[in-house]
Amino acid sequence: MAAKHLANCIFCKIIKGEIPSYKLIENEFVFSFLDIGPLSRGHALVIPKYHGEKLHDVPDEYLAAALPAAKKIAVALGAENYNILQNNGRIAHQEVDHVHFHVIPKPRASDDEGLVIGWPTQKVEKEELQKLHEDLLTKL
Amino acid sequence: MAAKHLANCIFCKIIKGEIPSYKLIENEFVFSFLDIGPLSRGHALVIPKYHGEKLHDVPDEYLAAALPAAKKIAVALGAENYNILQNNGRIAHQEVDHVHFHVIPKPRASDDEGLVIGWPTQKVEKEELQKLHEDLLTKL
Ligand SMILES: [Zn+2]
Ligand SMILES: [Zn+2]
Repeated sequence: MAAKHLANCIFCKIIKGEIPSYKLIENEFVFSFLDIGPLSRGHALVIPKYHGEKLHDVPDEYLAAALPAAKKIAVALGAENYNILQNNGRIAHQEVDHVHFHVIPKPRASDDEGLVIGWPTQKVEKEELQKLHEDLLTKL
Repeated sequence: MAAKHLANCIFCKIIKGEIPSYKLIENEFVFSFLDIGPLSRGHALVIPKYHGEKLHDVPDEYLAAALPAAKKIAVALGAENYNILQNNGRIAHQEVDHVHFHVIPKPRASDDEGLVIGWPTQKVEKEELQKLHEDLLTKL
């Protein structure tokens, strides 16, 4: 699908070079650059060169290129511990409405640096999972 | 690259059907299923059908298939707010040493359900970013 950009989107402006960035990788489908408000040294973003607000708005060929680019960045950083994160929606911590994948090194176990993760595991009955599973299979 | 599996890996066993799962999507490159210890209703995993411990251990063709599958699941769930997360290394919250992408719905703004995110932004000098940028460009 042809690239699509929005005139007033900060990430579309970065792709078009209208706003400068510390560019790392660019190919037909993705653009990546250092986050200037990093959670840790080397925190970078990979964005599709197609304006989609959320993951489900972006064509597959743009999505397919994102993780290989993230991998290249992780290798260049020499990161051993790191998180790949993509947030959809304000309550899920999305701040710019153009899909972006964070590559966030976690240099040490600390809440002061890198991504901090809380993991509130839910109690769920087997019957509930089975029902959900059956329902999803009709939609996939 | 040909699929690679480990005999004693729980996710490789799920791929091979040696351990049952609530399977959602399977194709040549990825396998996905419901997480039985979910953070929210619909929490699912997408895993490459290639045993790699961390993102940088997985061939690109397997990585390329992960996000299109995650997208299909998000659409089937009808999720509006959700996170895509992939953790590398114990201190980055990885618990199974076979790459896995979490699709985690965030049904409401709450620390009791869905992924909980802490965001300790670092102060960084422009000169430091410039030096890091120059260094990374020699490695990419
Ligand atoms: Zn945009
Ligand atoms: Zn495995």
